[in-house]
Amino acid sequence: MISWSSLYHVVEAMMPLYAAMALGYASVRKKAFTPEQCAGINHFVALLAVPLLIFRMISSNNPYTMNIRFLAADTLQKVIILAALAAWARFSKNGSIAWVITLFSLATLPNTVLMGVPVLRGMYGPMSENLMVQIVVLQFVVWYVLVVFLFEYMAAQNAFMEQQQMPPPQANGSHSVDILAVNADGSDPDVSIAQEETTRPSGMLILVMAVKKILKIPSTYASLLGLFWSLIAFRFGIKMPAIIDNSLSIISVSAIGLGMFSVGTFMARRKKFITCGYYLAVLAMVMRFLIGPIVMLVSSFAVGLHGVFLNVGVVQAALPLAVLSFVYAEEYNVHPDIMSTGVIMGIFISVPLTILYYVLLGLRR
Amino acid sequence: MISWSSLYHVVEAMMPLYAAMALGYASVRKKAFTPEQCAGINHFVALLAVPLLIFRMISSNNPYTMNIRFLAADTLQKVIILAALAAWARFSKNGSIAWVITLFSLATLPNTVLMGVPVLRGMYGPMSENLMVQIVVLQFVVWYVLVVFLFEYMAAQNAFMEQQQMPPPQANGSHSVDILAVNADGSDPDVSIAQEETTRPSGMLILVMAVKKILKIPSTYASLLGLFWSLIAFRFGIKMPAIIDNSLSIISVSAIGLGMFSVGTFMARRKKFITCGYYLAVLAMVMRFLIGPIVMLVSSFAVGLHGVFLNVGVVQAALPLAVLSFVYAEEYNVHPDIMSTGVIMGIFISVPLTILYYVLLGLRR
Repeated sequence: MISWSSLYHVVEAMMPLYAAMALGYASVRKKAFTPEQCAGINHFVALLAVPLLIFRMISSNNPYTMNIRFLAADTLQKVIILAALAAWARFSKNGSIAWVITLFSLATLPNTVLMGVPVLRGMYGPMSENLMVQIVVLQFVVWYVLVVFLFEYMAAQNAFMEQQQMPPPQANGSHSVDILAVNADGSDPDVSIAQEETTRPSGMLILVMAVKKILKIPSTYASLLGLFWSLIAFRFGIKMPAIIDNSLSIISVSAIGLGMFSVGTFMARRKKFITCGYYLAVLAMVMRFLIGPIVMLVSSFAVGLHGVFLNVGVVQAALPLAVLSFVYAEEYNVHPDIMSTGVIMGIFISVPLTILYYVLLGLRR
Repeated sequence: MISWSSLYHVVEAMMPLYAAMALGYASVRKKAFTPEQCAGINHFVALLAVPLLIFRMISSNNPYTMNIRFLAADTLQKVIILAALAAWARFSKNGSIAWVITLFSLATLPNTVLMGVPVLRGMYGPMSENLMVQIVVLQFVVWYVLVVFLFEYMAAQNAFMEQQQMPPPQANGSHSVDILAVNADGSDPDVSIAQEETTRPSGMLILVMAVKKILKIPSTYASLLGLFWSLIAFRFGIKMPAIIDNSLSIISVSAIGLGMFSVGTFMARRKKFITCGYYLAVLAMVMRFLIGPIVMLVSSFAVGLHGVFLNVGVVQAALPLAVLSFVYAEEYNVHPDIMSTGVIMGIFISVPLTILYYVLLGLRR
């Protein structure tokens, strides 16, 4: 059973995140910050603070003691959902790659870095932080690469179908939060190279484009470098010198506060919270908070994951949508309205829902 | 005697500050951030991060156990220097209020919040953090009020002498770091009201203007509110609830890293490091790193301050110049070139000099 005091700990862990977000929202609404100033803070978060946080998280995590069963459950959840969506796309006349990507992102890509680590630590203690880090590694090294690959494949396919008669969809970053996007001015020179270089989609070329694109994202670098360091450091018992670790952490400690602040400024700059209509908003919430966690629960049983590991797995699957998923959706112009609604509504709905999952899972003991 | 290991601790405490500054410098030089984006980060630091840090520092400091002798030494140092400068201004034909303010700021206003607390903690442990906080209280509640009063007095006097025939000096915030300045667009509607409302300087009116101006600075609010809270909390044994403290700290932890980052971007946006000529640069360094600490040493002996308290007092007096002093100098257009040089050169010179003072003071035991 969950005690009132442990429930209070969860609220205590979530409250600062919402306080930082509310401060960002109020700052823009009270005109204390101009849109350009918000862009500066957001760019700092995306380019420096979050990548440094990810590097510190992953580099201090022992890769030789990773919980294979836990990661298998997480992987199985994503594979099941992807397979189901692919089958639907193949056999239904409404199916399309665009919807596969959107529904897959909604169901399987939660906000692990900014919200996952602090909230789960509040719920299940420092051990769960370690589990979250393992999910972060896979998220950046495998799953975002796949999502970008699908986006690039779709873009190439469209270019082929349109015989380069229509202009390719343009990235529109003016209203976006570029958490983990890359250039100072929001532009991305490579976004439509796939369309230009090929007249029919070639799997290999598209993969190369996707990897090139992914390698421009500081968080991907940070994940790979962190993994590389941890593989060496934990193999040979090398410790990061305190002077270097402190130099990284002086910036990385700002990531969560500034990241949530930035999400708040993003909300304040949108005209409406729900931009995609109520039907699609409900669909987005069902994918995020029902399908995702339930498939995670099934996957966990399937691989024999038990106890607190199962709980951490399910609760993290019920976190709000990752902001990065919205950034890509806007960049490739694939249902950005749904993803924006998913991020914003998700943050509000997640408070009762995440706590509900936490309490329900606590009843099992 | 100072051991090698304690010297390493000092370097360990200073290094992250310089790493954050170097990152800010490199980010601007590599064009990863536009000037507007830098302004956004800087504005966040000035409006939210530093004031919240100051509030947390002061509100958690027990005002009933303040070290009166330590504060007396700090106060005496400032009074001696101010009296000497005032006498010089009265009896020398080169003397002026402008030079009194500039030399007083150079000699007595170190960077206590961003650098003082972490560096002194590295040198003398957590106890010195507490002493630094006590100096921060006086700095914001007394000394900056005095400096702004003198600036306003001078502005009013100039307005009187010029019979409002010449336009008043305009604030030029385009290149400044607005650490503790106030508006999003850098404007300050009240800056020349003193000149408009009076045709001859009236002490009372000028004081009111100065206090009004000071009360617009978030750090002053934060100091007063923090002091108010601590007076009540430590009187009646009230503790700040963890949920509120965490909500404040999620933003305040970013202050030191982002503050130093912001100083780095400020350096990168200046065309030259030394903008006031070598003679004045040397004068600035002598005031900051020789006169200030030596008068602090004399004052400490005068009030009978001994041991580690004396050491903390002298070393903090040899920290780099406070960035806020430069901000005011630029706003009132009183020797901004000297103050800019003072901030930038001071940061580089302070590493060997602060350590030298630390070692020399350590020899006394």
